[in-house]
Amino acid sequence: MKKVVVIGGGTGNFVVLRGLKKYPVDLSAIVSMADDGGSTGILRDELGVLPPGDVRQCLVALSDSSRLMRSLMNYRFENGGLGGHSFGNLLLSALEKVTGSFEKAVEEAGRILSIKGKVIPVTTHQVRLKMVLKNKKVLEGEGQIYQSEEIDKGYESLYLEPIPEVNRRAIDEIMNADVVILGPGGLHTSLIPNLLVDGIAKALRNTKAKKVYIANLMNRRGQTTGYKVSDYLKEIIHYTGKDIFDFVIVNNEKPPKELIERYAQEGELVQNDLAPSNGFNHSRVIATPLLDDGLKEVQAGDLLRRNLIRHNSEKIAQALLKIIEGA
Amino acid sequence: MKKVVVIGGGTGNFVVLRGLKKYPVDLSAIVSMADDGGSTGILRDELGVLPPGDVRQCLVALSDSSRLMRSLMNYRFENGGLGGHSFGNLLLSALEKVTGSFEKAVEEAGRILSIKGKVIPVTTHQVRLKMVLKNKKVLEGEGQIYQSEEIDKGYESLYLEPIPEVNRRAIDEIMNADVVILGPGGLHTSLIPNLLVDGIAKALRNTKAKKVYIANLMNRRGQTTGYKVSDYLKEIIHYTGKDIFDFVIVNNEKPPKELIERYAQEGELVQNDLAPSNGFNHSRVIATPLLDDGLKEVQAGDLLRRNLIRHNSEKIAQALLKIIEGA
Repeated sequence: MKKVVVIGGGTGNFVVLRGLKKYPVDLSAIVSMADDGGSTGILRDELGVLPPGDVRQCLVALSDSSRLMRSLMNYRFENGGLGGHSFGNLLLSALEKVTGSFEKAVEEAGRILSIKGKVIPVTTHQVRLKMVLKNKKVLEGEGQIYQSEEIDKGYESLYLEPIPEVNRRAIDEIMNADVVILGPGGLHTSLIPNLLVDGIAKALRNTKAKKVYIANLMNRRGQTTGYKVSDYLKEIIHYTGKDIFDFVIVNNEKPPKELIERYAQEGELVQNDLAPSNGFNHSRVIATPLLDDGLKEVQAGDLLRRNLIRHNSEKIAQALLKIIEGA
Repeated sequence: MKKVVVIGGGTGNFVVLRGLKKYPVDLSAIVSMADDGGSTGILRDELGVLPPGDVRQCLVALSDSSRLMRSLMNYRFENGGLGGHSFGNLLLSALEKVTGSFEKAVEEAGRILSIKGKVIPVTTHQVRLKMVLKNKKVLEGEGQIYQSEEIDKGYESLYLEPIPEVNRRAIDEIMNADVVILGPGGLHTSLIPNLLVDGIAKALRNTKAKKVYIANLMNRRGQTTGYKVSDYLKEIIHYTGKDIFDFVIVNNEKPPKELIERYAQEGELVQNDLAPSNGFNHSRVIATPLLDDGLKEVQAGDLLRRNLIRHNSEKIAQALLKIIEGA
């Protein structure tokens, strides 16, 4: 079985993992540990645990258990002291307390959810993501960065504090992979935080695996306003140290006009500008229809509800399988 | 396989179920729904769920899953908005929200914990336990009753509000049982609340099952101060409507003097006064050593930590198995 590693954090990972899960591939998800918003942020502050939110999403994506169990993991308490916490986050945090180890907690939760594949935190150190903007303003934490509307004016630096030690298992997975997939997902909040962990970029440069970038569908207003696919790639390549990508998968399907209008406040469609003139040979660009056309998957988890213009997991899987088979 | 039904609520149930679980009997636990203290009370108030605490204890007692899973269920969060909640309570409450039914939640949690047997809420209606004392003071809720130190001065009435409908499955279990076990456990807070649900007392009078009462080891100061075994029985019989018991199991082993002294503040040992003179023929009294002599089971759950003078689950099981085999 081909070994496929998906690097990311949030919703983007979810769609890729859910799509590939149905096929005979050996799947691993390497997950950013920088999340500190919402329920996850409260648990980090109050209990001193590692951030469960992104790991939970990957576990649910890989879960072979009943729809009920998946709904349970994403269930959010509505009232009182529990308000806003998703049950899956509480499961991971309680398991971390009982086992004394976040990695054991992830393993045990994976067993409870009968997951297919592995979920690997990129580090098991407590880190915060920080960003210094061009105007010297410091954004403290992924939550603040995610909410900021001035990142597209430029930033000076993006870093993790304190400098974390990489999880050796993450390096091993990348080195032994046949295919490594980055994206789709939040550029500054989900993808790059993995690349900031010392050792990950080097492993990506050195592994013999085919490297694939899946472009986002939408820019995020104030964060990646006006970005084209090449802009995403350039920024990622800045952190990987060189252009590592063998393939770039981009959507070429147009969403209905009403949806684009409804999204105008949040951001606009990412334009595919890849061409030999900006260094991206057509031969490695896979432009194909990737849009999800329905609400069929809404029940699968609250995270999918956020985006109506989104990737279809089966279409993504089909595009990836061609690469995986050839790897 | 003989069908054994255990009626109760808290710690007492736990010891009996854990003991019998290892043997080939068909076990059911009928559980009081009056709990409203601590974590359970907060969840009832804030989320409007049915009380998970006692059910959780029974599920853990019957669980065949790993020690880790059992520890997880009893793990209590220590800080912040989650402080004081046991994870198992949150699991049951989240499952109730996701499935829309407390009974389905109990069933699903039973599956997650690989339980041997069934856990059946005595009612699925929201009820509060209330007590009117001789001095006309009204104690509102199991929590208040459990904390009261003036119950031993007498009470006028103990009732559930609103009057709940019995869970038909509880009646069926009692009617089809070979052996029904009451106790040990909190007299006013765990045992009698089951008997207050309309239909339970009648089923206990009508079933062909052998009925067993297991006497408590310790009186609870201010609640059952000075009670002898016959006093417990008389009070229970008041609610069952007639003396239903075929057997009464009492401990005849003396705890170490240091432990009795350490417990003096909380209560004193229950004296066995059963004799033909107060209507209890010796033939149905089983007096046998039942004390737990170590701390071996402390890890099994936080509930056991509360009592150092307590029943040994294996000794209780052995005493019960003789009755079960003959039933």
